[in-house]
Order: sequence, then C-alpha cells, then structure tokens
Amino acid sequence: MSQISSDVEAARMQIQFSVALLRDMLHGNHDEWIKHRNLVALLSQDPAFDKSLRPFLSRSERYTRALRLVSRLVELGDQHKWTPEQYATAEGLLDDPLPFTLHASAFAPVFLSQGSPHLVSTYGSLVANRGILGCYLQTELGHGSNVAGLETTATYIPESGEFEIHTPTLTATKWWIGSLGKTSTHGVVQAKLILPGGRDMGPHLFFVQLRSLEDHRVLPNISIGDIGPKAMGGYASVDNGFARFDHVRIPREHLLSRFAQVTESGEYVKPPHAKMSYGGMLMLRSRIVMWQGWIIAKAITIAIRYATVRRQGNSGPDGAERQIITYPSVYYRLLPILSRAYVFILLGRNLQASPEQAKMFAPLAKRVEAGDTSPLAEMHAISSGLKALTTNAVVQDVETARRALGGHGYSEFSGLGRIYADNLPSVTYEGDNYVLHQQVTRAAVKAFHAYVSSQHSSADTPTLTPSTLYLRTLQRDQSGSPRHVLIDWNDPQTLVDLLEKRAAYTVRQHVQNARDPDASVEQRVAKGVMEAFVARQVLGMLEGAAADYGLREPEVAVFRELLKLYLLVTAENALVDLLSLGLISVDVDDDPTLRLRRAIRDLCLKLLPQSIGLTDAFGFSDWELDSSLGRHDGKVYESLLERAQTEPLNQTEIPDGYEEYLKPLLERGRREAASRSKL
Amino acid sequence: MSQISSDVEAARMQIQFSVALLRDMLHGNHDEWIKHRNLVALLSQDPAFDKSLRPFLSRSERYTRALRLVSRLVELGDQHKWTPEQYATAEGLLDDPLPFTLHASAFAPVFLSQGSPHLVSTYGSLVANRGILGCYLQTELGHGSNVAGLETTATYIPESGEFEIHTPTLTATKWWIGSLGKTSTHGVVQAKLILPGGRDMGPHLFFVQLRSLEDHRVLPNISIGDIGPKAMGGYASVDNGFARFDHVRIPREHLLSRFAQVTESGEYVKPPHAKMSYGGMLMLRSRIVMWQGWIIAKAITIAIRYATVRRQGNSGPDGAERQIITYPSVYYRLLPILSRAYVFILLGRNLQASPEQAKMFAPLAKRVEAGDTSPLAEMHAISSGLKALTTNAVVQDVETARRALGGHGYSEFSGLGRIYADNLPSVTYEGDNYVLHQQVTRAAVKAFHAYVSSQHSSADTPTLTPSTLYLRTLQRDQSGSPRHVLIDWNDPQTLVDLLEKRAAYTVRQHVQNARDPDASVEQRVAKGVMEAFVARQVLGMLEGAAADYGLREPEVAVFRELLKLYLLVTAENALVDLLSLGLISVDVDDDPTLRLRRAIRDLCLKLLPQSIGLTDAFGFSDWELDSSLGRHDGKVYESLLERAQTEPLNQTEIPDGYEEYLKPLLERGRREAASRSKL
Repeated sequence: MSQISSDVEAARMQIQFSVALLRDMLHGNHDEWIKHRNLVALLSQDPAFDKSLRPFLSRSERYTRALRLVSRLVELGDQHKWTPEQYATAEGLLDDPLPFTLHASAFAPVFLSQGSPHLVSTYGSLVANRGILGCYLQTELGHGSNVAGLETTATYIPESGEFEIHTPTLTATKWWIGSLGKTSTHGVVQAKLILPGGRDMGPHLFFVQLRSLEDHRVLPNISIGDIGPKAMGGYASVDNGFARFDHVRIPREHLLSRFAQVTESGEYVKPPHAKMSYGGMLMLRSRIVMWQGWIIAKAITIAIRYATVRRQGNSGPDGAERQIITYPSVYYRLLPILSRAYVFILLGRNLQASPEQAKMFAPLAKRVEAGDTSPLAEMHAISSGLKALTTNAVVQDVETARRALGGHGYSEFSGLGRIYADNLPSVTYEGDNYVLHQQVTRAAVKAFHAYVSSQHSSADTPTLTPSTLYLRTLQRDQSGSPRHVLIDWNDPQTLVDLLEKRAAYTVRQHVQNARDPDASVEQRVAKGVMEAFVARQVLGMLEGAAADYGLREPEVAVFRELLKLYLLVTAENALVDLLSLGLISVDVDDDPTLRLRRAIRDLCLKLLPQSIGLTDAFGFSDWELDSSLGRHDGKVYESLLERAQTEPLNQTEIPDGYEEYLKPLLERGRREAASRSKL
Repeated sequence: MSQISSDVEAARMQIQFSVALLRDMLHGNHDEWIKHRNLVALLSQDPAFDKSLRPFLSRSERYTRALRLVSRLVELGDQHKWTPEQYATAEGLLDDPLPFTLHASAFAPVFLSQGSPHLVSTYGSLVANRGILGCYLQTELGHGSNVAGLETTATYIPESGEFEIHTPTLTATKWWIGSLGKTSTHGVVQAKLILPGGRDMGPHLFFVQLRSLEDHRVLPNISIGDIGPKAMGGYASVDNGFARFDHVRIPREHLLSRFAQVTESGEYVKPPHAKMSYGGMLMLRSRIVMWQGWIIAKAITIAIRYATVRRQGNSGPDGAERQIITYPSVYYRLLPILSRAYVFILLGRNLQASPEQAKMFAPLAKRVEAGDTSPLAEMHAISSGLKALTTNAVVQDVETARRALGGHGYSEFSGLGRIYADNLPSVTYEGDNYVLHQQVTRAAVKAFHAYVSSQHSSADTPTLTPSTLYLRTLQRDQSGSPRHVLIDWNDPQTLVDLLEKRAAYTVRQHVQNARDPDASVEQRVAKGVMEAFVARQVLGMLEGAAADYGLREPEVAVFRELLKLYLLVTAENALVDLLSLGLISVDVDDDPTLRLRRAIRDLCLKLLPQSIGLTDAFGFSDWELDSSLGRHDGKVYESLLERAQTEPLNQTEIPDGYEEYLKPLLERGRREAASRSKL
C-alpha cells in the first residue's frame, strides 16, 4: 500500500510549475479561490452534508435528504448573511440536483421579469425569500420544446374576469417539470390563450397556485404527482412531476403580462416589443459553458489520480507493473479531456465577464445597446452552439474517463457513474443538441450569404462577428491553392487557420448542395462552426497566457501545451472534413494524419508528468469528488474496502431470502445429486 | 390518443414483406421461434416474473428478488423437464443479471474440465445440480486481467499434504467476483502456487469451500462481503463480492490438476500440454456476438416504435406535428443501429453452428483437428476482436437510441437506461476492449509478415484464413494505382473491397511505422481488421440471402438493403482511413464523401417505411422489453402515466420531510417577506 501512496507523492514531486498559480487562474483570482476554499471547508465539515450513505438511499430518501440539505443551507446562509449569488454557489457545491434550484433559476426570473407590476409587488418578496416555491410548467407528455404544439389551454371568461386553465387531453399533461411533483406551491404554466369566441392566441404564461400554503395539499381540480425514477438513477433527489388541470380558475392578473395583456372585456393588447435582456442570456449560457468545464474537471481529476496509482500489466522501469496512465491507450484518452476542462472553464469565464468586459462580444454588445437587435439571433445561435458543444463533450468525456479506469470504474464508489447519470439530460434538455445544431447551421448559412453578397457588392465588407470570423478565410484563399502541402502541426496559428477554413468550406459546401442535403450535414456544419469559434478563443488564451492570467514562465509553458493539445485533438477529430475538403493533402508516403497523431502523442508524453499537478490545480476536495478512486492521497483500495462495509447487504451474514429460496434450492440440488449417485 | 395507436397501426400497414419469415430467420428457424414464443408466454404469465415494481427496489430487495426468480425457474425446469440449455435460455429471458449465472457459465466449466477425476467424481453431480454453488475468484482489488500479477498465495505444506490459501496484502483481496458476496458456497480461486523452499510456480486454480452447507455461514478464517453498488444502478441484483483468506487450509487434491499437479512430497508435475477445447471457445465467443445483437435489437425496437408514434416540431403532410422518425437527424441515428442488430445476430448464429458447420472456420478447424494448434492464436484474436467490436457497438448504440428519443428517453420507464447500465461492463470485463485491440493488432502484424514473406519466397502462398483474407488485396494492387476514381457506393462488393484494402493498408502502414507508433494505432488497426472480417461475412449473407435463409423476394429485398446500410455506415465511419490511405480520391467538386452520405440517406429513406416491421421481426413481447416507450400497441403516454402512479413518492400526498424541513422553510420565507414589506 505504501507503494500506492508513494506513487501519487512521486507524481507530485515531478510537478514543474506552481499549482497555486494555475488554481487561482481557474478560479478567477486568488481571492475567489480563497472564498471558494473557505466555503468548501464550511460545508464539508458540516455533518448535514455528509455523502457516505447516499448510494444506499431510495428515491424517497434522496428527496427527503435534499430537503434537509436545503434547510441546512438556508440556515447557514442566514447565519453568514450570504447574498443570493453566494447561496447559489453553495447549492452548486452540494453535488446533488436539488428540488429548489429551478425556483431560483427558472421560475423566479420568469415571474419577476414578465409579471405585471401589481403581481410582482404582491408576490415578489415571497418569491425572493422562498415563502412560496415555484416551478416552470412548459413540457407536456406529448410535447417538448415546440411551444406552438402545447395543448394546455387558458380560456378567458369575461363574466368573472378569470382564466380557466385546463388539460384537455392525456398528451397535454404537464410532464418532466422539475420540483413540481412534491415541492412547489406555485408555478408558471405555459398554455394556449383562448379568447372569447374561441380565438387561439398561442402560448402565454400564467401564474398558478398549485398547493395550499396551509398544509401543502394539492388544490382542488389539480392532480399532481412525481413522474417516477430517471434512467441510471440520475436526478434521484429531484421531484420531476406531472400536473393535470380540470377547469382551474385564476384571476386575470395572473397572466404574465409583460408581452401581452387581456383586458377585462377580453381584448388582446400587445405592448411594443420589450427589449430583450442581452446580458442575462449571455450570462446564463456562459454559466453553462463554465459549469460543463468544472464537471469535466471533476471526472478527469478522479481518472488521472487513479490512473497514476493503478498498476497493471507489463513491468515498468521500476520492476513493478506499469502505472496505467503510462499506456498510450490510457493517456491518449485522458489528457485531451484534461485540456477540454481547462478550455471550457476559461472560455465560460471570459464569456461570463460582464458584457462590457467580454472582449469577444464587445462589438455585438455595442450594436445591441445602440438599438440594433439584429445581432441577437447570431448570439443566440452561438450560445446554443456552445451549449451543444460543451454538453456533448461532458457526457462523452465523463464516460470515456470512467471506461479508461477498467473494472473499478464500474463501481458506484468511483463516483463517475453518478456524475454521468446526473449530467446526461443536459444533451437533450433546454434544447436537444440536435435541434440546436440546426439553429447554428441556419445562422451560419445566413452569415455566409451576407458575406458573399457583400464581397460582390461595392458596399463595405460587413464587420465579421466573433462567431463568423472564420468566413474571412474564404477571401484569403481566392488567389491560390487551398492545400497545405506540409503542415506544421505544432504551430497553433496553423491549426486555428485550418479549423477556420474547415468551417468556412463546410458551410460553403452545404450552401452549394442545399438542394440535396445528406442526413448529417447540419451536425457537421454546426460542429465545424463551433469548433472554429472555440479554437480562435483558445488562440487568444494561448497568446495572452502571461498577460491575462498573471502566470510565470513555467505555468505559461504547461498551460500553452495543454491548449495546443486541445487544438490538435480538435483537428484530429476533424480529419474527415480536412481531408475531403482538400485542406490537408493526401500523401501515403509521408502521411500528414500520422504526423498529426505523433504530435498528439508527443504532447501527451510531455504533459504526462505534469498531469497530476494540472488536476490538483482544479482544487477539488475529497468531499467534492466523493470518489474512492479520486482520493487526493491515492489510498484508493483502502477506500473501496472501507466503503464496501457500508453496503446494506453486508449488515447480515446470511442474506434475506436464504431460508425461503436459497436453502431449499441447495437442498434440492443435494437430493438430486444423491439420487443420481444411487442409480 | 387514437392518433397514436393509429400511427403504429398505419406504420404496420406499410410493411411490404413477411415479418414472420424474417422472424424465423432471426430465431434460427420456425421451430425455434415457436419454442421461444412458448417459453416467453410461460414466463411472462407467471406472477413471479412480474417486473412492474423493479424500478423501486433497493439492491437488497433486488438480490432477494433474484433468488426468488431462480427458485421459481428451477421449479419450472423440474416441471417441464428442461435441459440445461433450455434452463439457460429461460434464465437469459428474465432480463436481470442473476447471482447464479456464473455458476453455470464460469465456475462449473472450469471445475469440470480442469478438476482431477477424483474431485469431479466427488463434486461433479453436486455442481451440475446446484447442490453447491460456485464462483470464479480471479480479479483482485489491485490486479485485473494480468494473472501473473495476482498476489493471493497457495503454499504447499508437505507435512499435512495441504495448501494454505492466503491473502498477503490489501491489494490481494479478491474483488468483483460475481455471486461471491452472499450466494456461493464454493469457489475456484486463482492463486500463486508456492512450493516448499518458496518456489513460486505462478498462478494455478484451487477449489475452495467458502460457506457452510449447514447454515450458509462463512467458514473460519475467510472474510467475505458484497463490494457495494455498481455505477448507474447496473447489475443491482448480483452480489459481486470480495474475499480475504487468512491461512486457509485445503486438501492437496483441491488443486485443479489438469495442467499441473503437486505430489505428496511437494514435487511439481506437469502433464503433456492438454488439448485445448476449440469448439467450446468458439461457442462461447459466438454466443457473446449473438447476445450483443439481441441487446441492440431490444434497444432499437423500443426506439423505432417510440420514434414512430412521437410527434414533434414542424407540421407534416397530415397537418399534425411530424413523427420524429421522419427527421434526418433521427433516422440517420436509428436505422444503422437496426442494421447492426441483424448483422450481429446472424453473424453470431453462423459462428455458433458446430465447428464442422461453421463455413468460415472450417479450414482452421480441420488444421486444429489434424493436430496443428497454430490457428488457435489467430482464432483467439478474431474472437477477441469480435467481442470488442460488438460490445463497443452495443454500449454506443443503446445510448444513441436513448438520446434519439429526447426527454422521455431519460425516464427509467423507457427501459433503455437499465439496458445500458447492465451492459456497460461488457466493454471492460472479460478482457478490456483496449487490451483486446492490442491482441488483434499483434495477430494482424504476424499474419502480415507471414503473408509478405510467402510472397517473396518460392513457397506456396499460405492459405489465408477468414480473418486474414483481406491481405490478398495487397497482391491485387501491385499492378496499378490503388485509387478508385469514381466509387459506386451502391455496390456491396466495392464496399467490401474497400474495407478489406483499408484493413490491409492500415496494417502495412503500422508495420512500416513500427518504430514510431502513435498512441491510437492499435485501435485503428484492430478496427480495420475486424470491420473487414465482418464486412466479408455480411457480403456472404447478402449473396446467400435467399438460399441460406429461405426468404422470398420481398424479404430478400429489404434484408439486402439493411445489410447494404451496414456496409455503407461502416465505410462512413472509416472515412479518415479511406481518404488518408488514398483509397478514395479527394475531389472537392464531386466529393465522394458527400455521395456516400447521400447513399446512406437514400437507403434510410427506403428502409424507413419498413422499419417497424423490421423491429417487429425480432419478436419481442412487451414483457421482454419492459418499456413504456416500446409498447407494441404504441400507447406510450398511457403507459408512462400509469407507471408513474406506482412511484413510492406518489403514495402520500404530503412528502416525508414536509413537517421537518419544507414547512419551516416556507414559513421562514413568509416571515422574511412580511418583515421586508413592513420596512
């Protein structure tokens, strides 16, 4: 065992940079890191937040535990006078989906921003202080993100000045609604507004009380329940629910009236288009990007720590079996994941800076502020694309990391299965990633046409936005052959150029073949466009490493290598496009794809001795990781054995069912055997 | 709702072939289908095999349930006088990993084939009749498939004529052992044989009693337990266990002595190398291939049925929202999966025919029977490769199918999460797929060298085996340019040629670059070699469709299209190799990759109206699928709502924890809100 602890110690001896400096960079700055560390210390030492028995709880117990977690968190928040942001950060650290998160992230913002002044003045403080708890009822059993297809109705009754919320069919049952099943007292309901005479005004939002504030019972004519367990045990602690409404009356003022009102007599009044909240949208999406980065960071910390102490197979230089991280098939899988964690965290942080500070969107922001809403569509597309790109990466990377760990990766105590199951819905919710790809592709085609027509006209070249910058590579290439004969895979600028050309050529090819598209072209276009965008941002990080993040030479060096690995691996995954579009040449005798792959290998081998330091820099505590395999001290086997003792099956020597099933079965077998031997 | 049932009925009206004929083909023949159907009817009507409450059981309850399932199955077996094979088939149908399966599939075969005649005569009948239950103790906490690294010792004590089984370290703890935790009474233990004087003879197998046959208590000096839950709730019903031995004595005869004996005085005696069981190995691996095919079949039946009744997004030709299966992003994901289910089932069946009948291995089998054991290594490689290829496909396809279903795919009631979690370990156990890739690559390199030297010598060309047949494409190409200028993607022979060349060229490139290999080359070589092998088999199925399977024209037509889709999609996934090796030309103006993708799209569109029939042909009952989304009658929403009612959280209106946590939280919020409004 001393072997194993010393493996991780030996690995830490090889770190050639300041883990603390990279940690400060990842957390924003040193002060942010200290705040984070102190909060983690506070939570991890509180018995309420112990996770040791979590794997053995039923869903009902997980739900009750979630109530307890929030209850304690609110106590702590009162005690330490947390701001709502600090409270939200603490909630995120609990590493459990909670049946309260959507109150603050979905219900409250919609209610507060779209409710009438009267409604907000009546309920706003209750919402802000969780005196009522809300949920957001959009999805129906038979209908998803296409709000135009929703069936729930809200019919205006001029006689009483009320709306009648109704569920006319089975498929109109509200379904999947987070926190609805057992928790929420109120909700915002998406329903088709029906005016007198049967005029269908399409989907609108209504504020509806669901449960009594006296005793939490469901109000008359509403039926509510939990929709049952989720796949692979994910989101066990959240009461995703269903609701059916049987002609439920609500006051006219409960229509969230920012975008439309109904007068007492039943007239529809539409205010001038209210200004979209540009900063808010960007903030939300950038949070998703950074959050995905931190999830990957967790998974890769666990994986690299375990792969450093796990030994298997051939003898290594020290005579013992080799550390599995030294196998090409392992490091080739793990180190690219590490690079994605860094890139997404920093990319999200760059986006999250206030709009004025977010360099990359500054030109767009200026146009929006000047009253030009045209960039909003493109910004929507790019933020959709980033959501799809990063959530796809998370789901794939967490599972790749788990599998790289061999057998023990399949233990619940590895922690990776739980991370996977809880993050899995991110690829299908809040815009299925395939639907988001369509949106990105549509925006890219539009930008392409605008760019081409500006080239052909005498007008000024339109200012290319951050997400369409790649289009300028079309111009650059007009003079000569597009082929790179000998590509220097070690030059980041070359890689970014290639990825930008690949985006531009893919879009152009799609436009040229618009009448005969194949079945996966939208995925390819969206991927190309998004990867070019991220690659350009990564180049910015690479060039600004020292200045922007206050790093010294050793940290700059390792950070740059990590970013280069990101670019190389992105290029490797784009090889079909790069080859078929003629962006790299085919040469069987000096195959550029082989040179690319060797460059990846060389960079991995260079990063390998630094990998434990690069994961330590995320700054995770053992409490946050909750993984036997990811322990900071490398004592993975002690931890697996210790945690196995807590398994309920081990609390009795003879299992339940022995007397009833197992013993008779064995006795039957012995009788059979005895009777045969007598024959 | 009538809409939905009629969607699936309408889809069935469009079937243009006999579902029954394809069903008979998939099940082997009509008699086999009838036997299968009757067995399913028997089991599905027995209340013991009801699955409706399974999602809500704890692991302990799942284990007890598994005991009950087996207990009832043995009763039925006695009643209907099942053969061991029939019993095993019935066990497989239960759709639950059972803590007894390894007794018959791992423990018994090893014990019976390697135990001494004396040992087998004493215990054989008990083993066969389950009078004792066994497990196979190989893996240790710190050691996996590398048996040379195992630490458990079996030291011979000449004084008493016994072995002493001992666990010297924490890492030597036996771990992950199926059925060990609570069930097994005996086990076969892999341990290092230590002879007097400390001579380490390496790993050997020992038969060890673990629990008392009187009361099932663990025997003295042994500690045993369950290792705890598995990731994502997988294998919940199996008691994978750990064991530690503290100088446990067993008789000398308990060394399984087929390959080595220890005399009373402690001498090591090795018998002449015993003949390997060629048929057995092939049978086991072929079962894995077919089994993976049936798992994919389950997932794709669920997915295609749901995608046929689910409507979303734009309005289709009938004015309602479109069936999601009509979206390119959905059918492009699902139909290739359908093709893999067919290919793997039939490939496994072809391999499973007795060695004399298995056409593809007949030449090898003859050489082995004539005493030439040299083909065994290659056969091992090919069966390893098939295990890796098919298990990788299963895991990927089940999850792809789940995601294609959008939100409801994440419900436990979709059934796909359970299938995924239970099958996940297949990619890391019984040879991690990455390790298997190494073996395939090693065999391929050896075959390449043998082929090349035979070409340069005057000796006869060696007979190419089924798995090295692709090497002959090297010869064919000596004369001309390897490039296909215009490929007919609709010609299966062309596709197979391409995939065989791709295998040969990949191996050759790897050999030429052997001194400077990149980090993923073994995966690429193994993939290339295995895909060429399977493609060649698929071509055989395509050509023999009518003759071999007794199909008529309409079934032949749809079956051939399905097989062509398999080949096309395999080619698409091989595009990087095909392009970089110069096997297809780069032409930006008439891009062959676009033509390939359009061919895939066209074939998908052709197959789309037949897809519900192609899944019906698997013949699954609703009981087997256990999926709300995969119901034969299309009543998916009724089923989701009905099953949600069984969720334990819905058994009370007010959740546990309301009084203790939720009510005080809400009251605090109202107090806060009230006090603010007073300010």
